[in-house]
Amino acid sequence: MERAGGEFDLIRHIQAGLSVKSERIMQGIGDDAAVISAGSGPDVLITTDTLVEQIHFDLSTIPYEDLGWKALAVSLSDVAAMGGNPVCAVVALGVPRSWSAETVDRLYRGIDDCSRAHDCPVAGGDTVRVQRDSVITMTVFGEVDHGRAFLRSGARPGDDIWVTGCLGNSETGLAVLNSNADSSMYSEAVSCFRRPVPRLRESRWLRSFGGVTSMIDISDGLCSEIHHLCRESETGCRLYADRLPLADAAVKWSGVRGQSPVISAMESGEEYELLFTLEPALGARLDKEWTGPTAMTRIGEMTTASSGLVLVEADRESRIENRGWDHFRS
Amino acid sequence: MERAGGEFDLIRHIQAGLSVKSERIMQGIGDDAAVISAGSGPDVLITTDTLVEQIHFDLSTIPYEDLGWKALAVSLSDVAAMGGNPVCAVVALGVPRSWSAETVDRLYRGIDDCSRAHDCPVAGGDTVRVQRDSVITMTVFGEVDHGRAFLRSGARPGDDIWVTGCLGNSETGLAVLNSNADSSMYSEAVSCFRRPVPRLRESRWLRSFGGVTSMIDISDGLCSEIHHLCRESETGCRLYADRLPLADAAVKWSGVRGQSPVISAMESGEEYELLFTLEPALGARLDKEWTGPTAMTRIGEMTTASSGLVLVEADRESRIENRGWDHFRS
Repeated sequence: MERAGGEFDLIRHIQAGLSVKSERIMQGIGDDAAVISAGSGPDVLITTDTLVEQIHFDLSTIPYEDLGWKALAVSLSDVAAMGGNPVCAVVALGVPRSWSAETVDRLYRGIDDCSRAHDCPVAGGDTVRVQRDSVITMTVFGEVDHGRAFLRSGARPGDDIWVTGCLGNSETGLAVLNSNADSSMYSEAVSCFRRPVPRLRESRWLRSFGGVTSMIDISDGLCSEIHHLCRESETGCRLYADRLPLADAAVKWSGVRGQSPVISAMESGEEYELLFTLEPALGARLDKEWTGPTAMTRIGEMTTASSGLVLVEADRESRIENRGWDHFRS
Repeated sequence: MERAGGEFDLIRHIQAGLSVKSERIMQGIGDDAAVISAGSGPDVLITTDTLVEQIHFDLSTIPYEDLGWKALAVSLSDVAAMGGNPVCAVVALGVPRSWSAETVDRLYRGIDDCSRAHDCPVAGGDTVRVQRDSVITMTVFGEVDHGRAFLRSGARPGDDIWVTGCLGNSETGLAVLNSNADSSMYSEAVSCFRRPVPRLRESRWLRSFGGVTSMIDISDGLCSEIHHLCRESETGCRLYADRLPLADAAVKWSGVRGQSPVISAMESGEEYELLFTLEPALGARLDKEWTGPTAMTRIGEMTTASSGLVLVEADRESRIENRGWDHFRS
């Protein structure tokens, strides 16, 4: 539920000013979801995400149904990144005067699609008028076995760095929609941008597989997320450009633009893939035992903090900058 | 978390379109909070409320600190109305470009004040930029003993109708602030408008006292809330104007405006008092045993649905119209 850069600093600042602590809050501000102890039962996960028109979405590139899907998928991705199962969602919707009841219906149809696909019922909400730009705040409540949530802070030097799926689709999809290109040539990328699939199944499998030491979802781009993992785990990292699972569409589109697809893979936000670290001894077994349709790819390893964050491209090494989609700075 | 009138109809409509049901959702859309079963432990309450600048608040009548307090208090009031205890809150904040870091700080200082006063830590949130009007969505997670939540639907004909505190302060406070009157003459009303106190203590006491058959908080005005209770409980009601606990400020201000304070008491929104029904045999004991600083007043009784909703004023009877603060229609 937390984004990078300018906003991240603001959140740290806010956190420092909050005086009420509770032993029940096992993980508060600073991870994908808050983790609350619920006594003898599973821990409770809570994550909230706001999408604001003109800042996070533009209705010229996303139909209302897909916007509804995406609003829920974004929060479900946070639950996946914590290794949890969703229980239910509540929707706070700010509706501009220009929207008809049919428009609201279309949005809810998309929420309902995503709700059904991921078994996360909508339990309630609040619907209010806004003067101009629509706002959707989705809060998802989930569960994870007590003390078993995947945090950002558990990685150690030597752990391997893995990522689910492929990278660059979402940014490519949006770029295609904002261009004069034939979007039907990039349908997978457009679909990833409009209807991202939260990696709940992959996360669940990894939880039972074991050996995962940290996890985050890629909402702001790989560059930015690896910075979060390294900071919270107090490590450095080495990523290998030739191992990045580049999306076909990103490769094709990068060719059109005459730019390296590695940049797209490193910086594409709203991917909603999982970035995680794994005990190195378990990599071969993971490769063998994971047979799901989503790829899982080892893209590098954690190092000591003093080694910094490094991207290895052929025989060249460069520092990974902390940049990504920071809606707050824009 | 749900408001009246136009919005209420929209929510019913939305509810009908949602296809995913879950046995764990004991109470979904249609009460102050959703109630989720958590196995052997207490039930989980989730409530979400959005405050939009220019629709729900105007920064000329409320300082940032008070706005922060109120944003949390509104959701805590929903938890009180369910008979629960708050566990933690998450804050989704849409910050306009015009706000400085100090402005955000002031808002959070108020959230923190309310958080401390009611022992509800802030566990996380999302902070995003908005183009123009600020938006605050507060989601509070609470708990209540399994199967013991106060619902809107449990009242029976013959039950007495009670209300906490006094009525008319909030509307009076806002009216005074929007006038040329000396607001220091109405400081209690202004305080009720700016820093409403969620009736968590009263609700907790009533839960242990027993015999409460339904409850709702007065966010949209008594007229509107009694309509909700009667609809959900399938009853009618008789309220007695001479029993309404009129706020001193409302009486004084009504005098200035030459209007009956009963109208103010019936229609004042954002009161955040509790409206509840009680088994009639228990009224005398409640009067005797409740010794807290907040008044609890019996203002009428539930009747059969066919009797309708009636306000008795001296020897005149009138129908109670379902009107209140409906931000959605405005």
